Amino acid sequence: MDIKAIKEYLGVDWLAVQNQIVSSLKSDIGLLNATNDSILSHSGKQLRPMLSLLMAKACSGGMVSDAAIKYAAAAELLHNATLLHDDVADGSDKRRGVPTIMSLMGSSVSVLVGDYWLVKAMELVLDAADDSSKVMKVFSKTLSDLAEGEMLQLQKARKGDTDEDDYLRIIYNKTASLFEAACVSAAISSGASEEMVKAAKDYAVALGLAFQIKDDILDYSGTEAVGKPLGADILEQKMTLPLLGAFANAGKEKETEIRVKINDIESHPEEYRNEIVAFVKEYNGLEYAVSRLNSYVEAAVGALSMFPDSEARDSLIELAHFTADRIM
Amino acid sequence: MDIKAIKEYLGVDWLAVQNQIVSSLKSDIGLLNATNDSILSHSGKQLRPMLSLLMAKACSGGMVSDAAIKYAAAAELLHNATLLHDDVADGSDKRRGVPTIMSLMGSSVSVLVGDYWLVKAMELVLDAADDSSKVMKVFSKTLSDLAEGEMLQLQKARKGDTDEDDYLRIIYNKTASLFEAACVSAAISSGASEEMVKAAKDYAVALGLAFQIKDDILDYSGTEAVGKPLGADILEQKMTLPLLGAFANAGKEKETEIRVKINDIESHPEEYRNEIVAFVKEYNGLEYAVSRLNSYVEAAVGALSMFPDSEARDSLIELAHFTADRIM
Repeated sequence: MDIKAIKEYLGVDWLAVQNQIVSSLKSDIGLLNATNDSILSHSGKQLRPMLSLLMAKACSGGMVSDAAIKYAAAAELLHNATLLHDDVADGSDKRRGVPTIMSLMGSSVSVLVGDYWLVKAMELVLDAADDSSKVMKVFSKTLSDLAEGEMLQLQKARKGDTDEDDYLRIIYNKTASLFEAACVSAAISSGASEEMVKAAKDYAVALGLAFQIKDDILDYSGTEAVGKPLGADILEQKMTLPLLGAFANAGKEKETEIRVKINDIESHPEEYRNEIVAFVKEYNGLEYAVSRLNSYVEAAVGALSMFPDSEARDSLIELAHFTADRIM
Repeated sequence: MDIKAIKEYLGVDWLAVQNQIVSSLKSDIGLLNATNDSILSHSGKQLRPMLSLLMAKACSGGMVSDAAIKYAAAAELLHNATLLHDDVADGSDKRRGVPTIMSLMGSSVSVLVGDYWLVKAMELVLDAADDSSKVMKVFSKTLSDLAEGEMLQLQKARKGDTDEDDYLRIIYNKTASLFEAACVSAAISSGASEEMVKAAKDYAVALGLAFQIKDDILDYSGTEAVGKPLGADILEQKMTLPLLGAFANAGKEKETEIRVKINDIESHPEEYRNEIVAFVKEYNGLEYAVSRLNSYVEAAVGALSMFPDSEARDSLIELAHFTADRIM
């Protein structure tokens, strides 16, 4: 089963999420609608609503409630809201191989449309149930995690002192927390037991960490067809697991030498970047990161062991393996 | 009674709001705390929490509940969040006469810290009461209004076709909606009747419109000591009530001539700006705007007539007059 097959399996529920997203965003302001349409026409994989729907089905024996549709749509809206803000924060001109809203329409539109998507996500969660405060707290914690994660990453990039604990906190905040919100809200919407909600959370957190580690591995080893040159993260002074793994293998002296170059990367961006990519490969940073990746994938799959056998559960397992195996 | 006297009257409740704001923002991320401290050291008038506390007291006969403190703090957090985002959208280097976070620390920090303040506002509202969904909807509508208002303003500035209805919608969305959230949440926290909540809303909306109209009047007539040159709005192609009033008085031909210049303002910024400031004065745009301002102030005061006599009510009346009379 691949991503396309999962979407087909989700069928009418997948369509309901797409319709929910479109109708939530509708406004009578032309500039806003045009911007929304432009974003929606490059939607990417939409992993978060996919996760959310699969988890709702895995917990309920196949049923997807109206609330589950709204939470799935909210997860995607919130994700895109943060991308719109991150593009401004990172000055990114391209995403998913297409020009960002920031580069097309300016940082003002990117910030304001991000705010709009964010509030539409909140409104969906508020509308999903009579007592929405429990799920609202899940999503608002995620939003707080996202902002804190970006700030911590910025601070660490400026100081150049990221260690593995910092890295794990950053990727939990930036990626896993929203996976968690998508799966926990889905489990709650299915009336899952506390134990099952906990398992949904464990699956989502492990999957989110694995997903981000894979992203960071691809930055050092992917094909350049993804649209970014290898080692792009290091140009932004982001220290990710492949680099931290190479540090662990290389010893203190070599680590210090490389950290000095990263702090000074703007002086020789191309030269230092090539050198650091080579350093990561020479000191087996990729193997180090792949081994962590595999243990998070295993943990994610393991968390599903308490779920009854179902096609939805199989798809969640499939998604975990896809995360590790994808090439972009 | 002036602003300072109102703060003294609010006494321990005012302090509780300040403490709530500080403790809500506390994080273990140094960059975030440093940025928060810098913003808090230039807090401005804090009109929104002032309004919120006065309304809570006016509705309850003087009592201020814990929920009211949280809503007042949330209103201020949300206001600052939108300023942080607006500074990025507008490219503003200064606010309240001091350098913006954007100019000091970059647009990335301004966007991300804005997101953080926004989610802290939401968390306060969520925590304020067992069933928070009613007030949550009030605040999330406001957040949606704010984003839509900024987008509409941007669209209108680009097209150059703002009319008075557009203007009123923009200033309702940008300013009055948050005044409304501050007052309506306060009235709800005091257990006010539906009729009283409605009066609180009417007061807040009229006051918010008056407040923004006064801001827009000051842009054409204030002392330049405020830190902005006269007519700064027109450099951003923002058409505000003094200009629209001058259009109404000047006739179609003159209006078209001026609109063409505004659309082309970047070609002769200083020359056209001076010409437009002179046009607004010559065609009594300021008088037009002052007359609207006064009727909103009257409407705000009128909405308070159903409230029992109290010092809090007197202060709300005072605030409405202050709005019209302030010189910066």
